[in-house]
Amino acid sequence: MIVQMKKGATKDEVDHIQKYLINKGFGIKDASSDEVTLFGVLGDVKSLDPTQLRVFSGVENVTRISSPYKLASKAFKKEPTIITLKNGVVIGGDDFVVMSGPCSVESEEQLRIIAKAVKDSGSNVLRGGVFKPRTSPYAFQGLGIEGLKMMRKVADEFGMAIITELMGTEHIDEFVKYVDIIQLGARNMQNFDLLKAVGKTNIPVLLKRGLSATIEEWLMSAEYIMASGNDQVILCERGIRTFEKYTRNTLDISAVLAVRELSHLPVIVDPSHAAGKWEMIESLSLASLAVEADGIIVEVHHDPENALSDGAQSLKPHKFEHMMDRLEKASTVFSKQLKR
Amino acid sequence: MIVQMKKGATKDEVDHIQKYLINKGFGIKDASSDEVTLFGVLGDVKSLDPTQLRVFSGVENVTRISSPYKLASKAFKKEPTIITLKNGVVIGGDDFVVMSGPCSVESEEQLRIIAKAVKDSGSNVLRGGVFKPRTSPYAFQGLGIEGLKMMRKVADEFGMAIITELMGTEHIDEFVKYVDIIQLGARNMQNFDLLKAVGKTNIPVLLKRGLSATIEEWLMSAEYIMASGNDQVILCERGIRTFEKYTRNTLDISAVLAVRELSHLPVIVDPSHAAGKWEMIESLSLASLAVEADGIIVEVHHDPENALSDGAQSLKPHKFEHMMDRLEKASTVFSKQLKR
Amino acid sequence: MIVQMKKGATKDEVDHIQKYLINKGFGIKDASSDEVTLFGVLGDVKSLDPTQLRVFSGVENVTRISSPYKLASKAFKKEPTIITLKNGVVIGGDDFVVMSGPCSVESEEQLRIIAKAVKDSGSNVLRGGVFKPRTSPYAFQGLGIEGLKMMRKVADEFGMAIITELMGTEHIDEFVKYVDIIQLGARNMQNFDLLKAVGKTNIPVLLKRGLSATIEEWLMSAEYIMASGNDQVILCERGIRTFEKYTRNTLDISAVLAVRELSHLPVIVDPSHAAGKWEMIESLSLASLAVEADGIIVEVHHDPENALSDGAQSLKPHKFEHMMDRLEKASTVFSKQLKR
Amino acid sequence: MIVQMKKGATKDEVDHIQKYLINKGFGIKDASSDEVTLFGVLGDVKSLDPTQLRVFSGVENVTRISSPYKLASKAFKKEPTIITLKNGVVIGGDDFVVMSGPCSVESEEQLRIIAKAVKDSGSNVLRGGVFKPRTSPYAFQGLGIEGLKMMRKVADEFGMAIITELMGTEHIDEFVKYVDIIQLGARNMQNFDLLKAVGKTNIPVLLKRGLSATIEEWLMSAEYIMASGNDQVILCERGIRTFEKYTRNTLDISAVLAVRELSHLPVIVDPSHAAGKWEMIESLSLASLAVEADGIIVEVHHDPENALSDGAQSLKPHKFEHMMDRLEKASTVFSKQLKR
Repeated sequence: MIVQMKKGATKDEVDHIQKYLINKGFGIKDASSDEVTLFGVLGDVKSLDPTQLRVFSGVENVTRISSPYKLASKAFKKEPTIITLKNGVVIGGDDFVVMSGPCSVESEEQLRIIAKAVKDSGSNVLRGGVFKPRTSPYAFQGLGIEGLKMMRKVADEFGMAIITELMGTEHIDEFVKYVDIIQLGARNMQNFDLLKAVGKTNIPVLLKRGLSATIEEWLMSAEYIMASGNDQVILCERGIRTFEKYTRNTLDISAVLAVRELSHLPVIVDPSHAAGKWEMIESLSLASLAVEADGIIVEVHHDPENALSDGAQSLKPHKFEHMMDRLEKASTVFSKQLKR
Repeated sequence: MIVQMKKGATKDEVDHIQKYLINKGFGIKDASSDEVTLFGVLGDVKSLDPTQLRVFSGVENVTRISSPYKLASKAFKKEPTIITLKNGVVIGGDDFVVMSGPCSVESEEQLRIIAKAVKDSGSNVLRGGVFKPRTSPYAFQGLGIEGLKMMRKVADEFGMAIITELMGTEHIDEFVKYVDIIQLGARNMQNFDLLKAVGKTNIPVLLKRGLSATIEEWLMSAEYIMASGNDQVILCERGIRTFEKYTRNTLDISAVLAVRELSHLPVIVDPSHAAGKWEMIESLSLASLAVEADGIIVEVHHDPENALSDGAQSLKPHKFEHMMDRLEKASTVFSKQLKR
Repeated sequence: MIVQMKKGATKDEVDHIQKYLINKGFGIKDASSDEVTLFGVLGDVKSLDPTQLRVFSGVENVTRISSPYKLASKAFKKEPTIITLKNGVVIGGDDFVVMSGPCSVESEEQLRIIAKAVKDSGSNVLRGGVFKPRTSPYAFQGLGIEGLKMMRKVADEFGMAIITELMGTEHIDEFVKYVDIIQLGARNMQNFDLLKAVGKTNIPVLLKRGLSATIEEWLMSAEYIMASGNDQVILCERGIRTFEKYTRNTLDISAVLAVRELSHLPVIVDPSHAAGKWEMIESLSLASLAVEADGIIVEVHHDPENALSDGAQSLKPHKFEHMMDRLEKASTVFSKQLKR
Repeated sequence: MIVQMKKGATKDEVDHIQKYLINKGFGIKDASSDEVTLFGVLGDVKSLDPTQLRVFSGVENVTRISSPYKLASKAFKKEPTIITLKNGVVIGGDDFVVMSGPCSVESEEQLRIIAKAVKDSGSNVLRGGVFKPRTSPYAFQGLGIEGLKMMRKVADEFGMAIITELMGTEHIDEFVKYVDIIQLGARNMQNFDLLKAVGKTNIPVLLKRGLSATIEEWLMSAEYIMASGNDQVILCERGIRTFEKYTRNTLDISAVLAVRELSHLPVIVDPSHAAGKWEMIESLSLASLAVEADGIIVEVHHDPENALSDGAQSLKPHKFEHMMDRLEKASTVFSKQLKR
């Protein structure tokens, strides 16, 4: 951390903040020139809040030079984190993993139709919402624990793993019992109680990027989970909020590259929520493969007109099959392979 | 809701979607011209998701013409909602209410020093965090329920009401027992489980706007609370996330005007989190008074250098006193009055 | 255009605005229900500003249902626009066109080294800035017309076409004489005088998307050029400004898909300015190919350490060669082909 | 400027970049610790582009510690810049200056009606567009030089100064002849040719903030004008582009405070373009007074229904009069005074 003093800062002001830091156990390394008083703060500055140091009289600004996360950082662990699910699916290795299924679980029958279709097309992880974060209190809120049991049952019939969103700490025991991956939604990316709670389980966690979360904040949320003891975190880029409204969100495809530079954690893409339009899913999935994401999570519904949520961004099974064909073919020229 | 069909849409496509809507109990009002096929959907369309209708073949786009919230809307209730706390503070009437106190409750002594100072300056609502949403897992996380009891004790000594943030449903009973206003933070604005939970209490709720929440989404979150039975909601504008990084967030002062146009709920401003710099607080508070917000919530600390959080945006007591003097004087020329 | 009146709007208010519209030659189509007064405006509403109608007393809101651009729209012209340069390069057809070269033209020697390298790797369009839009008045501003002549000379040696940025109307005659494609930069996307001026030439124009331009505004700027008589417009997505600062801008890869849905104009991607980091260029170029953009424009420099601008986002020739190899291989599985 | 090397950076890499800097005439100040290699660059680093240094092998990141502008900076000139117009209006002193008039000059008669009204209400600077930057090529583009002459004539009748937007360098001589303040619009904030051109005149320039310009970029554009020789620059905050669409733009009221902290230049607010709704103008003007801006620029039209542009954000004369009454009264409690 670098502290720069204001032009007219007095010797007393410089002494005051330096003493404060020394008392806290940090070292000081002077780097002043004729024009500016400047010093580095040495030691483990992770717990030191740069904005806090700006409080001191005479301070111009404070710049962090190391990342505020540790466990999630590539500096801490060089090799990529590889997560193996019970049904054998491997995330973070050489495979391009496709998670797919309906936005909401609506009935056992609906789920079975869709699960069969996506499994036939080569997807081995079944997604589906049973607790739904809906903007409107008047919209369908999900089937709850009953839906969770349906997912487990149907997935087992097809040898699939399941992923579903946990919205609060209340149902965590049932999630640990039933699911293969716990999903934390964009709106809960900084629900710190929830981050700590899933950090105490040993179930892989898919952490979606918040609507307006920086990459650093996203990795800090991963750090929360890991600091609580669970290092099986999968990151998921799902589009960020910008001024552009033609798409539901703006897919930040470069974020996949950024995360791979900064962290050892696997990262997948959710083109369905990013675009909000089924017509764009196939192309954005191919782009995700091209930047060597570890996979995608895609919404599929056999009857989007009657879907209880997100119909407009759901692929029909034959479109999904078409996309899987293209991904399989395209994966031959990229580093990640689509196994079907 | 208006449905516009694509240029080449067939009669079958038009019939298909109209039948679907009629079966759901809605009426159809044709508004087509020579150039375009267009129709209105009549009835209570609140539960109808416009994106869902875009799924239908031949549909170009779907436009909502009424707001998706009802209870929070001025169309539903014309008179302003006025909330009276146990200690007599009235929010939403003619008063400009100043809530103030430390970012974090650190000790009973710290809290008493600050409470005395702000009370002496004319503030009657004590703010203070006991559960802290911190970006870093390595930062101070708050004193928890012990801190809550301290707040109640100290506030009672000075005849003040208290407001503090609830981060999860686990502690809701204790909040109901001890606090006068439950605060929901920006990061939890769309924590729907939490919205429903506080909606089942009869304690006033201060709902901060999410970092990237539209005004409509913010009012929808208020609607969640109200639809669960609690109509005592206070909105709080606290800055939104934009590309500009000079301030911590960008205070959207126009949002106060927007909310007053759309809703009957009171709205206050949090200049501390918006600016992130104590130097800006006084001016932004005066601007909040000038747009006739119902009040402000401000961070105050007697020793910001040693504050455990948010020191850089905390006013010292004598600066707070100065701000209160200016607000009192300025309130003589605006519609809201600062009573001290 | 749909006009919705406020709940309590009087008959006089409805009559007043309808008469205004009828006097202007528009037709009225009533679409009111019991709950709401609503009508469509018929005729060529392109010149009608929806915000203007909100002025009328009693109007709640006004919704445009057709796009405000015409010549740039797919509704106007279904087949893709294909642009053929003098050296035979075809943009908008089956080829994936790679434009490349230094950020700034620094000297004839520098340009020749880079031109030879990129030509050898299979690029047939040479980019290079001679008038530079620099944030700082103290930064290198470009070689001007001398640089332009160098570009023409060097490009001719290698049989390449040239593209360079025009910053003002002053030099337009020289641009018409020397360049194959006139580039309009992001900061000038709504420099309407410039749009009209290049619209009066018969030189293809590459129109970069503005930093915070919506897709609709971008197409409106293309419309300006086309309405002035020049229909050879190439769109270029180069990243938009968002809250995320890890990359220089946020590449909006979905915009390529949006443009292809809305317009017949070709669209390419500029990964160099989007990312601002050379490490990301190759992957983002592959993603551009995967979404079937018509090409890319990429910065290359043989000595980035001594480049006068944008060194950090320039590829060295051997990295460029590596990228071209990967693009060529990858293009075998996508619809656009890289010819070398 | 601080350069931080990567963890494994070699001695050769460190030597290489340091030699490069020393050769350019800069000094080096080592600030390394056991954990990190770090050094400061001494000298006039204004011309040094931090992104350029990131090109060097082994560099982790480069941080600027001084502002990239000089003439516009408070560090360069402590006293506020005060600009006096020919008719005696003083901008940047103790007055709260109100500039007002129609969006577009439509006819001499229209202009005279509005000028008389705003003058009667106490405004002494007449605004009006004669070259209009319109998103659509099909919208009214302004009366051009004829309109400019009308403005001068009408303003002289009432003893008013005039301000109008210059869109290109072509008409600069006529502007110098006729106008009192040259306005540069948001879309031209980084039209560097235009910045240099007005910098060579001795006419005060009002520089609007770009739609997505950071405060630093805005000040850099002021620096362009000043570096060309004209130090009479007035800054104008007019709202920035964000995800929120309820208002036309988001008024960044804190930017007024930021500019006053960083620069000696006067700063005014344009609430009309920020909000896009006349209903919000009065409140936002009062907020501008409360944060002690140097004034406002407001759109007024006597017949908004028939205005050729921006009717929805124009105040009628009696509303303008009401606003001026409130501003006059309110100015008694703030530091800036409204003289009428």
